[in-house]
Amino acid sequence: MPETIPNWLYKRASATPNRIALRTENESWTFKKLDERAQTFAKQFASIGIKKGDFTALLVENSIQTAAIIHALQYLGAVIVPLNNRLTPNELIFQLKDCQADLLFYDQSFSESVKTISKDLPELKLTTYETLTSLVPLEVPLQTEILLDDLHTIMYTSGTTGKPKGVMLTYGNHWWSAVNSSLNLGLHENDCWLCAVPLFHMSGLSILIRGVIYGSSVIIHERFEAQKVNAAIINERVTIVSVVSAMLSKMLYTLDQSYPKTFRCALLGGGPAPLPLLEVCKEKNIPVYQTYGMTETASQVVTLSSEYMLAKLGSAGKPLFTNELKIEKDKKAASPNEIGEIVVKGPTITKGYLNREGATKEAIQNGWLYTGDLGYLDEEGFLYVIDRRSDLIISGGENIYPAEIEAVLLSHPHVLEAGVTGLKDDQWGQVPIGFIVSKTNTLSEEELISYCSERLARYKVPKKIYFVKELPRNASNKLLRRELLPLLPMT
Amino acid sequence: MPETIPNWLYKRASATPNRIALRTENESWTFKKLDERAQTFAKQFASIGIKKGDFTALLVENSIQTAAIIHALQYLGAVIVPLNNRLTPNELIFQLKDCQADLLFYDQSFSESVKTISKDLPELKLTTYETLTSLVPLEVPLQTEILLDDLHTIMYTSGTTGKPKGVMLTYGNHWWSAVNSSLNLGLHENDCWLCAVPLFHMSGLSILIRGVIYGSSVIIHERFEAQKVNAAIINERVTIVSVVSAMLSKMLYTLDQSYPKTFRCALLGGGPAPLPLLEVCKEKNIPVYQTYGMTETASQVVTLSSEYMLAKLGSAGKPLFTNELKIEKDKKAASPNEIGEIVVKGPTITKGYLNREGATKEAIQNGWLYTGDLGYLDEEGFLYVIDRRSDLIISGGENIYPAEIEAVLLSHPHVLEAGVTGLKDDQWGQVPIGFIVSKTNTLSEEELISYCSERLARYKVPKKIYFVKELPRNASNKLLRRELLPLLPMT
Repeated sequence: MPETIPNWLYKRASATPNRIALRTENESWTFKKLDERAQTFAKQFASIGIKKGDFTALLVENSIQTAAIIHALQYLGAVIVPLNNRLTPNELIFQLKDCQADLLFYDQSFSESVKTISKDLPELKLTTYETLTSLVPLEVPLQTEILLDDLHTIMYTSGTTGKPKGVMLTYGNHWWSAVNSSLNLGLHENDCWLCAVPLFHMSGLSILIRGVIYGSSVIIHERFEAQKVNAAIINERVTIVSVVSAMLSKMLYTLDQSYPKTFRCALLGGGPAPLPLLEVCKEKNIPVYQTYGMTETASQVVTLSSEYMLAKLGSAGKPLFTNELKIEKDKKAASPNEIGEIVVKGPTITKGYLNREGATKEAIQNGWLYTGDLGYLDEEGFLYVIDRRSDLIISGGENIYPAEIEAVLLSHPHVLEAGVTGLKDDQWGQVPIGFIVSKTNTLSEEELISYCSERLARYKVPKKIYFVKELPRNASNKLLRRELLPLLPMT
Repeated sequence: MPETIPNWLYKRASATPNRIALRTENESWTFKKLDERAQTFAKQFASIGIKKGDFTALLVENSIQTAAIIHALQYLGAVIVPLNNRLTPNELIFQLKDCQADLLFYDQSFSESVKTISKDLPELKLTTYETLTSLVPLEVPLQTEILLDDLHTIMYTSGTTGKPKGVMLTYGNHWWSAVNSSLNLGLHENDCWLCAVPLFHMSGLSILIRGVIYGSSVIIHERFEAQKVNAAIINERVTIVSVVSAMLSKMLYTLDQSYPKTFRCALLGGGPAPLPLLEVCKEKNIPVYQTYGMTETASQVVTLSSEYMLAKLGSAGKPLFTNELKIEKDKKAASPNEIGEIVVKGPTITKGYLNREGATKEAIQNGWLYTGDLGYLDEEGFLYVIDRRSDLIISGGENIYPAEIEAVLLSHPHVLEAGVTGLKDDQWGQVPIGFIVSKTNTLSEEELISYCSERLARYKVPKKIYFVKELPRNASNKLLRRELLPLLPMT
């Protein structure tokens, strides 16, 4: 029998109504207030016909209102479709059509995009915060209980190849993910999780959900700004923050004092972490928890536990409590230290991609999710993530992992950011080339190539280095290697 | 689809092998060592034919070996039937027959009882620790994954009326209970839970299970001794201890210094807590978490969260995260402050009583468990447990709750323990009488009756007071009111 449990916010607002649920620069809401707002918004959504099972797309900024809207939709049992607000109208139209959205809720700042969308999708219902809050709430019964098997979210993956796919996540996927995270990171009464990642991504949404399940405070930043994050950690008793490497680098770069002891976890995801960065953190006693996860696993699926933070520097750790992991090479389990595809299992794994039976069958076999990421397990079973399979460079028959070369480049004291990708080459098939954001004006291509030559096998040394102002990143600040080549100067 | 997750100990030993799992006065085992022992024991059980689904009864003391045996049986998927080691052979025979046990594992100290049992049940397989560990392990595949719907335990309820019933508890019941507890109490890396309650009761078994799920240490005491518990809290950094009122009273009575700050929770269950005791704890800054639960709910189902510890003194709190609660009177929801039956729901609730379809149907209706306990909710939804329905005294048409009178008696400075029950009376139907363990030789019946008269309505004042050396208690130190009357002097 599928499990029924109380609606998370409903329960939390009853258990600890006076604890702080959400904070922004200007506002601070208790769970009671958040619950009242969410219930009212839910009834206002109901007044425009939104009901259980409806697909409600959100084109929104990070804000306290966005958080309340997400909880409101849970009170109706509507399926939440958070849209990446950096996408073009055409990309958004694709996703809205793909999931046959019933409603688009949007922030005024996106009204230009919405005009374009509306021309293509004239039937799509639209509403904004301003419109919604002016409506008379319709008294409907709210979902004070949830079924763990019910669909909660459709979240589109960035899709390194082909069209984006809508990952279906259930209440249960999110629930088990939150439980797993707490069994690894612990759960302290004073916990306060800083969300400087987008609420429309798994990284941000999962913080919001954990907040109500744990009864912890969440601080929402509109966007990532390294100095503001540092200030929050230092002055607002943030205990946990979710970051990707580029965010953490920038935080360290602008940090002019130590973090206080209250700061107990920088949860570092979004791809393999460069060792030099980890080493700086180790030196500075910054509690970095390396983690590996993706939308399809409802956030973290592997995280390094605290006692191995130093001994296993560079490892993403072991699968979380309810999850299992194996490495497959040529359809067989790989030996320790042998690189293969990372395959994971457990109740946090998506049921599949919306309307994509083929892609679902390919990705999920007997409950095991084939992640498309490459990695290996050491003798003790710790995971080392190497790279996305699709980012692999094959040069003269040798496998080259961009992340390995980026880590070397990043260890150079004058390099702020580095990205590596493969360039077509008549002789070798592909050769690696590097893109650098430099800290100085004096760094030269020659110096970096010679620096790499001392540290890497010859075939791994980038054949060319390009200096750029910034690297292409997604909304979560993850490097987009597939967008490096278009940066090349025209020849 | 029923959820499959990794075997708890298997997972824990992989995640944090070097953390301390179990400690006793003489031994200290890491999770790795516990896992190795449990795996070996499992294969030794397999060598005498124990397999998935077999009912394995345990007649054991609290010990580190007992803990390993319980984990060993989980590795086989055998159903664990922990027997109350204070029972007479006849009582044990009833339970062994009731569940058709395949094996009885027992500690040498119970060999006399086992001789008697064996005469009545000559077919019952027997083994001891000494025999088991001398066997050659049989290489069988172990259950490294568990199905949450699988049966884990049969635990017999003390049965205030009629024969004991075997409560069926699944892996899922225990799992959700552990998760719920951590969402309320939090989960700290240095947590160490002291188990001075029997491992054959829900209170002790649940500590063992939480230990492996949380990765926390568990200290096992052979039996409850107030001074040893105090010493462990003070010298061994115990952070949490599970107690009932009588244990906590004795701990305070023998305490000659303050508890250290590391001690963060005395989880107080086993019946309504007398207010005077809670007030002493409040004065002494002892962090008492009042809780309400039973075997049928796989331990705690309602617990007071820390922020209400003082404001709601005397309340058991609100239902834990995945659970719901209501008070029913005359088959309708009671109003706030109206006393009725406590009814609870959620994934920690037993699927029912073994081979007792009638009793199961009576107790569980539409997923709601009728507890047989009386209580009320205040306006804010906090539960106040009044008493067992079966302990209710009806005197001249008035309801009298023994716990209320006991609380008054316990507030007298010379009273160490108090028990109240009803005596048949020609005029009133029943009248309350009290049983007292006094701290002094000078306390008189007259004084106590006059003390009560100043504090209670006339019909609630005990008609007689009897001074006794000790009160009847079960193995968890819970007062057994139904065994008070036999203490009466023959007339």
